Amino acid sequence: MPGAVTQEGTMGKVTASISVSLDGFVAGPGDGPDNPLGDRGERLHQWVYGLAGWRESHGLEGGERNQDSDLVEDAMARAGAFVMGRRMFDNGEEPWGDEPPFHGPVLVLTSSPREPLVKKGGTTFTFVTDGVEGAVAQAREAAGEKDVSVAGGGQMIQQCVRAGLLDELQLHLVPVLLGGGVPLFRDMGEETTEFETARVLDSPGVTHLLLRPAR
Amino acid sequence: MPGAVTQEGTMGKVTASISVSLDGFVAGPGDGPDNPLGDRGERLHQWVYGLAGWRESHGLEGGERNQDSDLVEDAMARAGAFVMGRRMFDNGEEPWGDEPPFHGPVLVLTSSPREPLVKKGGTTFTFVTDGVEGAVAQAREAAGEKDVSVAGGGQMIQQCVRAGLLDELQLHLVPVLLGGGVPLFRDMGEETTEFETARVLDSPGVTHLLLRPAR
Repeated sequence: MPGAVTQEGTMGKVTASISVSLDGFVAGPGDGPDNPLGDRGERLHQWVYGLAGWRESHGLEGGERNQDSDLVEDAMARAGAFVMGRRMFDNGEEPWGDEPPFHGPVLVLTSSPREPLVKKGGTTFTFVTDGVEGAVAQAREAAGEKDVSVAGGGQMIQQCVRAGLLDELQLHLVPVLLGGGVPLFRDMGEETTEFETARVLDSPGVTHLLLRPAR
Repeated sequence: MPGAVTQEGTMGKVTASISVSLDGFVAGPGDGPDNPLGDRGERLHQWVYGLAGWRESHGLEGGERNQDSDLVEDAMARAGAFVMGRRMFDNGEEPWGDEPPFHGPVLVLTSSPREPLVKKGGTTFTFVTDGVEGAVAQAREAAGEKDVSVAGGGQMIQQCVRAGLLDELQLHLVPVLLGGGVPLFRDMGEETTEFETARVLDSPGVTHLLLRPAR
């Protein structure tokens, strides 16, 4: 049970945190290994590139400290393991290089089994073939009392919402229309899915919405 | 020029104010004259049905007064004329009845000419066949110093954004996934369209984002 206290202690939450455009895209059109964020997709992450916490996790120095960096650093500190979709892994593997910015276990949901990949800086990629429930369950085990962070992409987050696996969804709403690309939510089905807005944080250039599925 | 001071005085703004789901829909699937908001589409307007200002414009008594009703009443008070798409008119004509909730001139963008329709309570529907620029220009003239409100639907608002006609976009973001329906923005094209977030107002069950196109 999410967030439940067990004999082993308190379990962490399953969270997702993603930047999204006003027209609902999490990457631009034409995404692929040579164009990981798609055309114009970098625009969605502009608010994060200058932040101290983001720069540190990417091996860079300096950067700003403000409510945005607090948010990013807090999420990073709470994350004990990550889950990601195969498309995000394929797009990211090369740009992330030898020392990917996760610094912890990453469970990659895929349909073809593959040996684990051990990278520098504590990041390990483990390939999971037993569906989104299996990937999240393995990430929970790896995370211990910390949170499981669903790193993306859109389809993976959508699957977690649909399966009722997500405890928190942090949307970083960027006031731009991308015009096309990879949607976060599309054609979810014939039912409404209700959320509660737990917190709204307004920063220059981005509005952070913390959402919890209504249970 | 939008908002410019002319010899005739200050011109009003061109605004749009619309409720949208987390997955970007302004109406549910299957919308039509018999189902004006589409399946599940009423959910998007739940936050507004109990407000005093909305109830008054629909000929109903009572209702709540809070920051949401201030927002709705302020927009109504500033609107001197309305613009709407043909689909919204077709869907709304019957449910609005003899006394539609606009109480002012409404310019309906259509491709087939038609005689004006005069309704009770000050609402007149005039059908415009010379494109979105023509409809907004006629609405400006009718509105005088007051604002032109682009009432909808999604396609009409999208056209106004694309043509650079909109001064303000007020999104009422409702924390629900509708799963399908009429999108506000879809496939806008190969350029980003930038906005500035002028104000964020968080209420129970809805977050109001006031956006201005960056010029």
